[in-house]
Amino acid sequence: MLTSGGDAPGMNAAIRSITLYALHYGIEVIGFRHGYNGLINNEFVGLDEPLVREIIGRGGTILKSARCEEFKTVQGMQQAADNLHAHSVDGLIVIGGDGSFSGLTKFKQFYQGQTIGVPGTIDNDIDGTDHTIGFATAVDTAVNAIDKIRDTADAFERIFVVEVMGRKSGFLALNVGVACAAEHIITFENFSNPGIELQQVTEKIKRIKKQRGQCSHLIVSAENLYPGGANQLASDLSDYASIDCIPCILGYIQRGGDPVAKDRILATHMGAHAIKELLVGNSDIMIGIEGQFCKTVALSQSVEHHKGVNEYLLDIQERLQDLR
Amino acid sequence: MLTSGGDAPGMNAAIRSITLYALHYGIEVIGFRHGYNGLINNEFVGLDEPLVREIIGRGGTILKSARCEEFKTVQGMQQAADNLHAHSVDGLIVIGGDGSFSGLTKFKQFYQGQTIGVPGTIDNDIDGTDHTIGFATAVDTAVNAIDKIRDTADAFERIFVVEVMGRKSGFLALNVGVACAAEHIITFENFSNPGIELQQVTEKIKRIKKQRGQCSHLIVSAENLYPGGANQLASDLSDYASIDCIPCILGYIQRGGDPVAKDRILATHMGAHAIKELLVGNSDIMIGIEGQFCKTVALSQSVEHHKGVNEYLLDIQERLQDLR
Amino acid sequence: MLTSGGDAPGMNAAIRSITLYALHYGIEVIGFRHGYNGLINNEFVGLDEPLVREIIGRGGTILKSARCEEFKTVQGMQQAADNLHAHSVDGLIVIGGDGSFSGLTKFKQFYQGQTIGVPGTIDNDIDGTDHTIGFATAVDTAVNAIDKIRDTADAFERIFVVEVMGRKSGFLALNVGVACAAEHIITFENFSNPGIELQQVTEKIKRIKKQRGQCSHLIVSAENLYPGGANQLASDLSDYASIDCIPCILGYIQRGGDPVAKDRILATHMGAHAIKELLVGNSDIMIGIEGQFCKTVALSQSVEHHKGVNEYLLDIQERLQDLR
Amino acid sequence: MLTSGGDAPGMNAAIRSITLYALHYGIEVIGFRHGYNGLINNEFVGLDEPLVREIIGRGGTILKSARCEEFKTVQGMQQAADNLHAHSVDGLIVIGGDGSFSGLTKFKQFYQGQTIGVPGTIDNDIDGTDHTIGFATAVDTAVNAIDKIRDTADAFERIFVVEVMGRKSGFLALNVGVACAAEHIITFENFSNPGIELQQVTEKIKRIKKQRGQCSHLIVSAENLYPGGANQLASDLSDYASIDCIPCILGYIQRGGDPVAKDRILATHMGAHAIKELLVGNSDIMIGIEGQFCKTVALSQSVEHHKGVNEYLLDIQERLQDLR
Repeated sequence: MLTSGGDAPGMNAAIRSITLYALHYGIEVIGFRHGYNGLINNEFVGLDEPLVREIIGRGGTILKSARCEEFKTVQGMQQAADNLHAHSVDGLIVIGGDGSFSGLTKFKQFYQGQTIGVPGTIDNDIDGTDHTIGFATAVDTAVNAIDKIRDTADAFERIFVVEVMGRKSGFLALNVGVACAAEHIITFENFSNPGIELQQVTEKIKRIKKQRGQCSHLIVSAENLYPGGANQLASDLSDYASIDCIPCILGYIQRGGDPVAKDRILATHMGAHAIKELLVGNSDIMIGIEGQFCKTVALSQSVEHHKGVNEYLLDIQERLQDLR
Repeated sequence: MLTSGGDAPGMNAAIRSITLYALHYGIEVIGFRHGYNGLINNEFVGLDEPLVREIIGRGGTILKSARCEEFKTVQGMQQAADNLHAHSVDGLIVIGGDGSFSGLTKFKQFYQGQTIGVPGTIDNDIDGTDHTIGFATAVDTAVNAIDKIRDTADAFERIFVVEVMGRKSGFLALNVGVACAAEHIITFENFSNPGIELQQVTEKIKRIKKQRGQCSHLIVSAENLYPGGANQLASDLSDYASIDCIPCILGYIQRGGDPVAKDRILATHMGAHAIKELLVGNSDIMIGIEGQFCKTVALSQSVEHHKGVNEYLLDIQERLQDLR
Repeated sequence: MLTSGGDAPGMNAAIRSITLYALHYGIEVIGFRHGYNGLINNEFVGLDEPLVREIIGRGGTILKSARCEEFKTVQGMQQAADNLHAHSVDGLIVIGGDGSFSGLTKFKQFYQGQTIGVPGTIDNDIDGTDHTIGFATAVDTAVNAIDKIRDTADAFERIFVVEVMGRKSGFLALNVGVACAAEHIITFENFSNPGIELQQVTEKIKRIKKQRGQCSHLIVSAENLYPGGANQLASDLSDYASIDCIPCILGYIQRGGDPVAKDRILATHMGAHAIKELLVGNSDIMIGIEGQFCKTVALSQSVEHHKGVNEYLLDIQERLQDLR
Repeated sequence: MLTSGGDAPGMNAAIRSITLYALHYGIEVIGFRHGYNGLINNEFVGLDEPLVREIIGRGGTILKSARCEEFKTVQGMQQAADNLHAHSVDGLIVIGGDGSFSGLTKFKQFYQGQTIGVPGTIDNDIDGTDHTIGFATAVDTAVNAIDKIRDTADAFERIFVVEVMGRKSGFLALNVGVACAAEHIITFENFSNPGIELQQVTEKIKRIKKQRGQCSHLIVSAENLYPGGANQLASDLSDYASIDCIPCILGYIQRGGDPVAKDRILATHMGAHAIKELLVGNSDIMIGIEGQFCKTVALSQSVEHHKGVNEYLLDIQERLQDLR
């Protein structure tokens, strides 16, 4: 197995579960380091019980992660496959996000073994699963951080715009915004263009101030939507509406941290299920969760389809901030 | 509305959501205090935006909670209904567990308005909803506590038995046990009788010690299963198997605390949905969540049916602790 | 009393302690809102036990805070003093930082009552006290955030530079850096100029990489030292040394949050001591802590002297990162 | 070096600091496992940078800890000394509490090298140092737990008695009680006998109820004072005063957990200072902290003298709960 792409809390729990569940069935497990680079460079470690004993609650990944440009080339893929064949590896499990899965789907032209994806990304933007490993922790991390910002916003009765991660997806912004009682959420589903957004933000600030009097006002925004991000939005609010607003960018704290219980359980569940699927001979699939149970979807589905957020929740949030 | 029974993190978030969503539609909201006692004693407070502005992230319940013996009597119910009728209350929303809902189903013989239940309990033992408000927080609280106990167990390479709440249900024990990588979980689904349990615990301790050498060993147990609880189990292990084991009872820390993001979002979602259902005239229902969406079930279902844990997860956990 | 300047976790605990300790002696307490603005605008609230009952553990300040330009003018100070005299206020307690105390020292020309400062700032940059209210919490907040960043840095074996608050003081950077095992700390005490710093950072990165191989490398920097901050340092490392480094700015999360035990206890201790000093007729003083006991220093001392960090700790940290 | 006695958060940070500071001076370091047992059984591990790289923020102790009856015998001590002499160990650093130091003072009759104690215990009951490693974390852990209990106590307006650790010392109870705004604290300094305590608790409950009306009431008690502990006190309150009170015993969660910044810094500081003292030839001493600086005291002092809590803080707490 290997971990690839952005690290996500719970990746270690998945590594542990895959290892122990395989060992239960007498299957040997090796972990390649630094994502696909480890496959190409044949950098690996044999995994046993002592190595994974204390990692269920630890952030990051003991196998390290990385992006890998070389794995996008025919040569890189061929080298990786050669190494796997030389080790007689029957199946490869990749814990990562859609970029990693995209590489994995192409890899089956080179590699003769089974391939299985386990979705690990804080963005939750993978179709075919209700949740990805790391999402729950990232939401809690961002919420805890913004709770602190709210304290200062309340003390000074000021306006803050907080930028959260989520490159191509609004799950983090929406969930974090609802949990923080954000006065406004900027996400993929409700963003049209900077001019309209600026106008809507301005109007909402004025309306809520009129209703509540001077008080804190919190805008939670997904990154990469408003051009220039939180800093530019704050600057534009000042320039065009004379509204004083402090920008905050949460940044990398959202990717690390000890996984919350939900991510540990999800990773344990998915990791074991990945081995189950290997044992019955399935390949080219991703493990997903739906309700209480794991399921499998074609790897291609997870890559090609876009999973949208629950817009109903966005609608509720809007109404909670718009009182008669 | 009122909050009833054991408090659960997220009850305040539900109070906020119900209040604001109602105010969005111009509906007046009052909160009765101390559970059903407030109905009987006509103790209430008008709820507006400032009162609920800062409570989404706070544990406990601003409306207070209580058990209420009087509400089990005809006289109590009649008095409560009289008070609601005198206030011209069109609908009553009760945030609580199955005991509270059991009272609410009977109350419709006395009260002419609509009744809606919102499931709030750390036990997650209510049928008709994937999750109850407070469960996610309680799991994380218990896991954080047990992570600390694991540190000491590791340092001393000793055996601990930790008792978690969950009067009639194994959700807490199972989820906490999996997230803590517990060597053994005692829950309703796998408990037969004390003698067999003692034997199984003893065998597992010996087997794991044989496989791993001296190391920490953690047993997570639901309360009210092994007679005498964790203390008696530890004592019996000493008496009958000469195994030294330290008992810990997590107790009331599991009921309080600031709600995690998931419980805040769930409570916000369910609270708004309760008002939606009131607006379309529904009654005698409970709000549930299934996947990403809220649904409604008959209040009677939530009371009468038992919701079992995911036994598949228990099976995985067993295999992870049993390596070849 | 009032809270002024940047908010700090524990200000509410101080408000509680001052209020209750005064009430114990039958002294009436009022709180002015929004810092010195409240004095000028006569905006205040009577403080009693129910108002402060649940605030010992809450971030921010229930009295709100603000900067106040008007209080720097003779007219503003006169208006403030007139309001205090009209209320027959015998003594004014200001919870804040050196800017707030600087105003307070001048205010005694206008106000006839006693004045007492209680040091509340996350920067810990006030002379005459070992610790200020809020510092311990801010350190823990930053450390918890950077622990998460370290997870990602470890997973990718990359270099991060993290900027912490501390406008004119290195306490946060030093303590946070030591607690996070930072490979390098940039603080007032060891910073000379950007060119030398860039060179030192570069050399250290190369030396440690040579010793340890590829691994994470964390630089913790006080804000306002390296021109352009963490972003510019990262950019310069790339331009001048071809070193890839990710900048993170922790920002406002450091100011809020529930106070840790130490800040609650410190605030309780200092608040009570402030009332004690009022009762014995002292004025124009600041409450400080030294070891286990409170003391008083002239307000002017806290403003005029600069308190330096423990350079011995900085020396230790350097040696820990420089192995034979 | 070795870690001995009850584990305390920050022991790993001390192990890291001792190791790296020694390596800076080219000194070889080995760690004996399981406390003094490791000395006797010659069970040890060579410590280098990679082994201690990621442990500064981890609870427990990688060297494991244990009580050791054998080390109380002449034979055990002789065996331990023989092993140290065989390894040509110049100095032995013991991280532990007063029991461990008591053994160490006797050991100098057998061992010819230098001996240094580093105080690590959550109880803070060691004379010659303001703080011990682990105390700050244990206080925060207990406070966080009791904050959750307070939520439930508030929701139900009920009385709780919470028992914290601190076998022979009131530091934990006092600090935790102040930080939690406990209505009553039972500690070594104010406890006379069970009858008087029961009477005082009863009177205080009645007085506060009279002043505030029905509300939560929290008693924080050190263990091993009231005979039978929290459970018996609750039972006696019910029997003799008809007061309904819920007992909670925090137990082992107080010993583990990731160390807060203060304990990491303290451990880093003390660990480095221990090596400094070894280098200048000192022996039979304990490292202490006073204000910002480390100092040394005779090991015998730490064992023989009793360090009392700050009774002034206890007096403040009493007055805060006794309003006119």
